[in-house]
Amino acid sequence: MTASFENLRRLSGLLAPSGEAASTGGRPPARFAFNPQARVAVGVDLGATHGNVALTDLHGRVLSEAAERVDITAGPVVVLDRVAATIGRLLDAAGRGAGDLAGIGIGVPGPVEHSSGRPRRPPIMPGWDGFDVPGHVRRHWDVPVLVDNDVNIMALGEHVTAHPGLDHLLFVKVATGIGAGIISGRRLLRGAVGAAGDLGHVAAPHAPDVLCACGNTGCLEAVAGGRAIIRQLTAAGVPAATNSDIVALVHGGNLVVAQALRQAGRTIGEVVATCVSLLNPELVVIGGSLAGAGESLVAGVREVVYGRSLPLATGHLQIVTATSGFQAGVIGAATMVVQHTLAAERVDRELANSG
Amino acid sequence: MTASFENLRRLSGLLAPSGEAASTGGRPPARFAFNPQARVAVGVDLGATHGNVALTDLHGRVLSEAAERVDITAGPVVVLDRVAATIGRLLDAAGRGAGDLAGIGIGVPGPVEHSSGRPRRPPIMPGWDGFDVPGHVRRHWDVPVLVDNDVNIMALGEHVTAHPGLDHLLFVKVATGIGAGIISGRRLLRGAVGAAGDLGHVAAPHAPDVLCACGNTGCLEAVAGGRAIIRQLTAAGVPAATNSDIVALVHGGNLVVAQALRQAGRTIGEVVATCVSLLNPELVVIGGSLAGAGESLVAGVREVVYGRSLPLATGHLQIVTATSGFQAGVIGAATMVVQHTLAAERVDRELANSG
Repeated sequence: MTASFENLRRLSGLLAPSGEAASTGGRPPARFAFNPQARVAVGVDLGATHGNVALTDLHGRVLSEAAERVDITAGPVVVLDRVAATIGRLLDAAGRGAGDLAGIGIGVPGPVEHSSGRPRRPPIMPGWDGFDVPGHVRRHWDVPVLVDNDVNIMALGEHVTAHPGLDHLLFVKVATGIGAGIISGRRLLRGAVGAAGDLGHVAAPHAPDVLCACGNTGCLEAVAGGRAIIRQLTAAGVPAATNSDIVALVHGGNLVVAQALRQAGRTIGEVVATCVSLLNPELVVIGGSLAGAGESLVAGVREVVYGRSLPLATGHLQIVTATSGFQAGVIGAATMVVQHTLAAERVDRELANSG
Repeated sequence: MTASFENLRRLSGLLAPSGEAASTGGRPPARFAFNPQARVAVGVDLGATHGNVALTDLHGRVLSEAAERVDITAGPVVVLDRVAATIGRLLDAAGRGAGDLAGIGIGVPGPVEHSSGRPRRPPIMPGWDGFDVPGHVRRHWDVPVLVDNDVNIMALGEHVTAHPGLDHLLFVKVATGIGAGIISGRRLLRGAVGAAGDLGHVAAPHAPDVLCACGNTGCLEAVAGGRAIIRQLTAAGVPAATNSDIVALVHGGNLVVAQALRQAGRTIGEVVATCVSLLNPELVVIGGSLAGAGESLVAGVREVVYGRSLPLATGHLQIVTATSGFQAGVIGAATMVVQHTLAAERVDRELANSG
């Protein structure tokens, strides 16, 4: 009467909630017909100034993609209509029609109520708060539309492309903002209202009383995010205006910038150490535009996390920089669609059997 | 072809991994025969000096229980043999036999590798580290034996008995040690090696350099745990030797003790605030022997968490003291068995259908 742990794990992985289904790794059961080339998915990664769109197969492999400059403050109607048109061009170019489209996954820069696909404040731009993103996109493409925040889809993309064998991964985006995407038991952990991973406004220990845009002081991103580093560099006579400038300067061998990044890494590391104790991940991945700065930042994170955590939690822990880069967002967004499709087809079969 | 979110959730809840299955709330599907009175489960809660054992039905309702004084340092063979004998007495008294026993759930005071049921250091007592708890117990009772740490089973027990409708709950045990049990998406989050929730050795922000038993300084439980409070009270001329003394003193109206508890609550609150931002729970439950001190402690936690977190994460967040008290541990341990039994029976049926 008692099934093995392995059977429980195998089946439960195939039947996870929509958009959260685990990659199963193995072959689907014999009666479960699934052809990954039969249909295509679309992944969309929206940032403050970019809109990346990719067409993938149902393995999550990118077939074609388009990168556009987008002004997110133009509001959801303008931005999403443009994305919908881009999707049409990608489908046309691939010789695919609307009937081949399994769904559309979209990442937006801010918290999202995953079940409704509606963004929530903060820090989403005005006009987006509460907007029915799936409803609007379905006016153009009548398929399942799944929406999540940009850090979650980056975590999903990095998991699928670079670390598919791991069960527990913490992805930390370090850019102008700082946030985390949590993969726990192969699933994205979203929390009660989709706000999980919102580390940017955690109090940075030992931090100066810097005022944050949220109205509080000493928030992690006010102390160790891109703007804070630019402010420090400017004060030290090193001109930098963007995160790209910071990355270029450190690659050019500027020691002041390397020191600032290392210190930011230490500050982020103090918060990550608490996250490691709480979540016990196998891997911490540092991503986002400042992760491109390489070792200075991640060395600071490592220094504090390994110094501050118990041996049990860090004995096998690795802390690395993200590898999937530009594509992590679109692949993660498309992965939501792939997992939704797998789970939905499986559940339909279950219901047919038990009905 | 596309199943609804509700169907995905309903089925996935029934088919979660062993020991992590969600309480489904609703009626099982029509073809799933399950009679909660047909068999019984045993829940065991082991502490440094106590061994509580309960017999429950497969709803997790306690049928009978026994509380014994146990010396955990006597080692696993002595302690588990004694527990096995107690289980026999409870079964006899209830007129049940070994064939009625669905399984045994055991909570131990320290991290556990859940898949093997082997405790891990720290802080488990010598002799327990790596000991095959399920293997030894099965020499007496040849049934599934599930082992987890005491904080996780308290979280599970509190969830099942007091907050069964919630999906995301953070349970924080405040006693001599400090630790957390995370219910996320109705499942216990255990992490890569079963060390998730290990908050006791997180660096307490703004904390003095107090040496901790782990060898580090400024750890949360070295600053705000029972021993730290007793040390402060002794220095202030208020004699207290145990956590029970602290609770009795504050109930007697001692203001020095109330202030010490409030400050401990604030310190714990700084770490809990980070946990709230990371996990976005619906509810934080403060349990453990010092939670019996009532409002002083939890008021300190609330003060900092509400002051330090973003409105999105705390808008609907409640912070309360545990209500299930003494029974949370044994009920949580028995709940592991109930969930395992439900999941195993369901999976066997799935395999039979798809084979």
